[in-house]
Amino acid sequence: MKCVVATNNQHKLKEMRDIIESKLELISLGELGIDADIEENGKTFLENSLIKARAICKLTNMPTLADDTGLIVDALNGAPGVYSARYAGVEHDDKRNREKLLRELQSVEYNERTARFETVISLVFPDGHYLTAKGKVEGFILFEEQGTDGFGYDTLFYSSELKKSFGEATSEEKNSVSHRGRALRKLLELL
Amino acid sequence: MKCVVATNNQHKLKEMRDIIESKLELISLGELGIDADIEENGKTFLENSLIKARAICKLTNMPTLADDTGLIVDALNGAPGVYSARYAGVEHDDKRNREKLLRELQSVEYNERTARFETVISLVFPDGHYLTAKGKVEGFILFEEQGTDGFGYDTLFYSSELKKSFGEATSEEKNSVSHRGRALRKLLELL
Repeated sequence: MKCVVATNNQHKLKEMRDIIESKLELISLGELGIDADIEENGKTFLENSLIKARAICKLTNMPTLADDTGLIVDALNGAPGVYSARYAGVEHDDKRNREKLLRELQSVEYNERTARFETVISLVFPDGHYLTAKGKVEGFILFEEQGTDGFGYDTLFYSSELKKSFGEATSEEKNSVSHRGRALRKLLELL
Repeated sequence: MKCVVATNNQHKLKEMRDIIESKLELISLGELGIDADIEENGKTFLENSLIKARAICKLTNMPTLADDTGLIVDALNGAPGVYSARYAGVEHDDKRNREKLLRELQSVEYNERTARFETVISLVFPDGHYLTAKGKVEGFILFEEQGTDGFGYDTLFYSSELKKSFGEATSEEKNSVSHRGRALRKLLELL
């Protein structure tokens, strides 16, 4: 939300901006000119997030944040889980991943399509110590895509809290309830 | 703190930045081309913060944040209090204000120089409703200025928590315990 600050005191204004500003300033790999491809061979979201964060932390010698996220579908015994990004065989081919998910669930009824997104975020420091936080959001898998926003499985995930799919939600709405929003806000509290 | 994000996924990166970004984007009066001088004739910090926020909110028709802050010195029966910014008679003459404070306290012993900074922050919305939050920090008034950072009475205020004056503290240290930091963080939680 934009809001005016009723002061002519520049010190106060600066101080307020400093206080309100986030505790974390995120730097992308691109900004550092790093083109890294890390094999995520862990069995859990936590393992994968630590593998990624530790690898990049070693390269950069800077505090490094990594998330690992997956979709857990009850009717598929937890699949795609840690394989969510490469469910259809090709890394990050969102469209094929969604198509495969719909195929796998085609004979599954509405009330058995429950699912949740889970994120584990880790922040690894150069001295080896780390913080980690988890977030999840409950919902079910739709019979067809709804909405056009978001990425990954968002258009197929109906959020019970938002009463709409993540593909129909604004990013503000999604972030307020999402797995990643919750994990990241918990991590900020730990800092 | 700067930290690297270990991902090549631009959607994730954007989402993380959105989540981490502050809920409030502060716009200064200068940016709006407003040159307002509002008479702060309230008897309390709350009254003054509401007077300022309401006046600017009426001018801009935007949500408006205002703080009112003062230094409360026990040996001076709570002075300078709501008159902190104009203690020596001239509005925002920090140097003269500090000199007057030292003069008033010159015969006051160390253990009787206890004081606190208090801030009340109000956020007023165009429809008239408002949120408000208080913050304070305990300490005592030094016999002479220590440090060169901060503004107002900062160099004369020894923070019991930081074990140094606000003039010796980095802005990060000051904001972590200060009256204004506490009030603003409480307000953000209310949002």
